[in-house]
Amino acid sequence: MHELGEFALLARLQRRLKRAAGPPVVRGIGDDCAVLRPADGHDLLVTTDTQEEGVHFRRDWSTPEDIGWRCLAVNVSDVAAMGGVPLGAVVALSLPETLAVAFVEAMYDGMSAMAEAYDCPIIGGNISKSTERLSVTITVLGSTPQDTAAYRASARAGDAIWVTGDLGGAKAGLEALIHPQAATGLPADAVLTRYRRPRPRLREAQFLRQHGTRSLIDLSDGLSSDLAHICEASGVGAQLHAEHIPISDETRRVAGALGLDALTFALHGGEDFELCVTAPPDAAATLEQGLRGQFDCPLTRIGTIQVGTGVTLRYPDGSEESLAVGGYDHFRE
Amino acid sequence: MHELGEFALLARLQRRLKRAAGPPVVRGIGDDCAVLRPADGHDLLVTTDTQEEGVHFRRDWSTPEDIGWRCLAVNVSDVAAMGGVPLGAVVALSLPETLAVAFVEAMYDGMSAMAEAYDCPIIGGNISKSTERLSVTITVLGSTPQDTAAYRASARAGDAIWVTGDLGGAKAGLEALIHPQAATGLPADAVLTRYRRPRPRLREAQFLRQHGTRSLIDLSDGLSSDLAHICEASGVGAQLHAEHIPISDETRRVAGALGLDALTFALHGGEDFELCVTAPPDAAATLEQGLRGQFDCPLTRIGTIQVGTGVTLRYPDGSEESLAVGGYDHFRE
Repeated sequence: MHELGEFALLARLQRRLKRAAGPPVVRGIGDDCAVLRPADGHDLLVTTDTQEEGVHFRRDWSTPEDIGWRCLAVNVSDVAAMGGVPLGAVVALSLPETLAVAFVEAMYDGMSAMAEAYDCPIIGGNISKSTERLSVTITVLGSTPQDTAAYRASARAGDAIWVTGDLGGAKAGLEALIHPQAATGLPADAVLTRYRRPRPRLREAQFLRQHGTRSLIDLSDGLSSDLAHICEASGVGAQLHAEHIPISDETRRVAGALGLDALTFALHGGEDFELCVTAPPDAAATLEQGLRGQFDCPLTRIGTIQVGTGVTLRYPDGSEESLAVGGYDHFRE
Repeated sequence: MHELGEFALLARLQRRLKRAAGPPVVRGIGDDCAVLRPADGHDLLVTTDTQEEGVHFRRDWSTPEDIGWRCLAVNVSDVAAMGGVPLGAVVALSLPETLAVAFVEAMYDGMSAMAEAYDCPIIGGNISKSTERLSVTITVLGSTPQDTAAYRASARAGDAIWVTGDLGGAKAGLEALIHPQAATGLPADAVLTRYRRPRPRLREAQFLRQHGTRSLIDLSDGLSSDLAHICEASGVGAQLHAEHIPISDETRRVAGALGLDALTFALHGGEDFELCVTAPPDAAATLEQGLRGQFDCPLTRIGTIQVGTGVTLRYPDGSEESLAVGGYDHFRE
């Protein structure tokens, strides 16, 4: 890095990106600001997230391409959580001086692949020296037609609660990486990919927003935390049915081999980047059939919004427990 | 930090911010994305920058309030460099676990003061654990009327070159902090404040954009680097007159006391966040009198854009030297 210098590195990275041309990008990388032209009559969405080496990823667990993909994906997922469409991303890199230029280039290739798959061009950024660790902060801009953004605060008592896909997979993948010996020989490709290359439910979220969804959030911290955010913001409570939480066979097998509980992964694991959605129960057919038919995406009803506060978990034997918030808190783990 | 936890810290920081209400902010902190409504017929500006402990600031050189101010100011300056108006900022904090909550709150107070002074509300962000150092990445959004953003690439041979204010002050302040013994007893308040609390030329830049400016950049890396960016982007060269570079008496005295050269500070020092602007020479009276009259801001003509490449420095005795790019490169110093 030292031999190349900041400005030469910027030029090299810029050449690796697909050229962001045409609306809404007026001017991409290369000036003091990037310039966008959002469509008239649309609201603008803004989200930012840092991924830091040793906290969010490890270089021995993920390839540089995986890391680049992941850093952009977690932000695109926040645009999905509003039912929006991405417009573009700006990338702030903090790079240790000893990091190989080839590593940074490969990271950009992964980011660029994610950008292309989700139509979210990289339009600007910044490169800074880091004293210690590799750190990547990405800000993604998106848009929704005016006054249609899907907020957390819109859940109402009586709403049904659904989640997309299945839960706990990313946590199973992470645990398989933490305990490689216990996981040896297990089929774990799907859960490892869930951890390394999260796929935001972007188009699914747009469909949900357009078809009667009240409240929407992406599952980044974990179902227990993220549903609690919906409940607090909306002034309601929720009851979940333990046996309805969708968990894949692979997640169950990996959890079992590690002597851990798959339901705990699903409730508290985080980083699945599935969606949690509430809507009136009579929207069930539209939402479930629409997601299955158009996106091959399961939408599973897992509980009900109710008057009160907090999230309760009900087991098939009729017993209930109050679901403590157990997702990721940066200063508690 | 550990005792409080991430979500409680978020709530505390949020209470310290002035409430961002009314257009263009539809929804501030508290959902998956912030929501803005830029005015129809405007282009959107986006810029991002990281300030990292040990690289950009030190806790023994600046108060937490200074650090917060600075982290936002450097981004607002990039919006100024396009001639734009800020709409809002999102703040990504990476915090060491051992950092006192009171430090983070004071940093937010400084950021909030900057936000209020420049009408750039903090509308969202993210808090993450850092393994080592405090790091702050801010993304600022701004706007300009459609197709009016001031780009680097618009300079033409024959344009005059001006800078606002005076140069080298931030570098003089930084050197006074690096060599405290040599600087003891010197009047250095102004240059220390230049370093600690940069003041972007936001309204001045809007005036320049509206009154015939061709090319505009803010002096973050240093005049030699930043003017070279204009020249490269525009396919032109530049000649500067050494005796016209504006340098304050205090900067000269501090440089002298340290045995260093004030002109070197002014040419290569960086972080002054003054503006460098090119325009046809017949705009001189409008630009110079306008900035002086409306903003009490000196605008000093320092040279001319010419056919060719590179920046040449001409001394009063008629000698010339090619001005090597000497501003800050993160991986070269």
